[in-house]
Amino acid sequence: METRIKTLGILHAAHFTAQLDTVRLRTGRLTERIKVDHPEAAAVVPFLDSEHILMVRQWRYAIERETLEIPAGKADPGEEVLICANRELQEETGYRAERFLELFRYFPAIGYSNEVIRIYAASGLARIEARQDEDEISKVEVLPIQRVYDLMVDGTIRDGKTVIGLSMFRTLRERGQIPGDFFS
Amino acid sequence: METRIKTLGILHAAHFTAQLDTVRLRTGRLTERIKVDHPEAAAVVPFLDSEHILMVRQWRYAIERETLEIPAGKADPGEEVLICANRELQEETGYRAERFLELFRYFPAIGYSNEVIRIYAASGLARIEARQDEDEISKVEVLPIQRVYDLMVDGTIRDGKTVIGLSMFRTLRERGQIPGDFFS
Repeated sequence: METRIKTLGILHAAHFTAQLDTVRLRTGRLTERIKVDHPEAAAVVPFLDSEHILMVRQWRYAIERETLEIPAGKADPGEEVLICANRELQEETGYRAERFLELFRYFPAIGYSNEVIRIYAASGLARIEARQDEDEISKVEVLPIQRVYDLMVDGTIRDGKTVIGLSMFRTLRERGQIPGDFFS
Repeated sequence: METRIKTLGILHAAHFTAQLDTVRLRTGRLTERIKVDHPEAAAVVPFLDSEHILMVRQWRYAIERETLEIPAGKADPGEEVLICANRELQEETGYRAERFLELFRYFPAIGYSNEVIRIYAASGLARIEARQDEDEISKVEVLPIQRVYDLMVDGTIRDGKTVIGLSMFRTLRERGQIPGDFFS
């Protein structure tokens, strides 16, 4: 294991922080590590029917480009991750869902962040309102799921949670772990 | 798009940084964002034969636990990513590879990091030396690839790059995009 010797500096953003620590490695050697302390996060693969999903286009500051992704976001303090998934779906797409099925939970950036993303499939979608999150989302699109797999293979989609959500959905469907009435 | 108004603070680790910026959103509203400025990174799915891969156990400081992952690491300044892949494979497992095939490149943490991970399949493995990276790697293991998929589904493996590497390998193999002589 690795133990913290001291924290050299810390940055505070809304709801999460990044800190630089001096760390003792398993061999005894010292090094420095950046650690992002991140709240839990949720992502949603929203199924309009068994073959079509909603995706969002948004500008990503860290990579300075617009991307095509599944809806996602950080949990507010004290918020259950499933509640967060439903809220982010509504804010980013204007749809709510009747059913959520957890597909996977994982560490996106294990080298420097404790973030855990839980990915859900959602179905029973109903349009409720104009989107709220105009600050971040520029467009909502409907895509055939087969087209999404093609866009992963050709490199158009390069967002980790989107690739994992769609891949794990396919794996679970092939293994018979998506309930037969999920899309009804 | 989103534009930086000013940088409020910055942390420097070896070869990468985290900074806190004030940012103007597309709607004109101001917010703060943490951005990790990360070098390119490589990950390798190392095939001993068409059905067995090497994986490594290592302690992950950010999540305070040991994990089972494919070998990976950051490129040194000026280092080609493919060279980095070969170096990390050798340092973490003690094997070198004759053949590398790029499976995918993606953004693991698009919300706060510009990191890009390129994942390769590697074959033609040959043991060259005792492992060097005793600081980080506690054990090297051989796993049947079907077992790795099972460990993803049951949640034992929760590392994003490992899930994406194995998922994209399976997708490309199903689509006939892994050359027939890759394992020979």
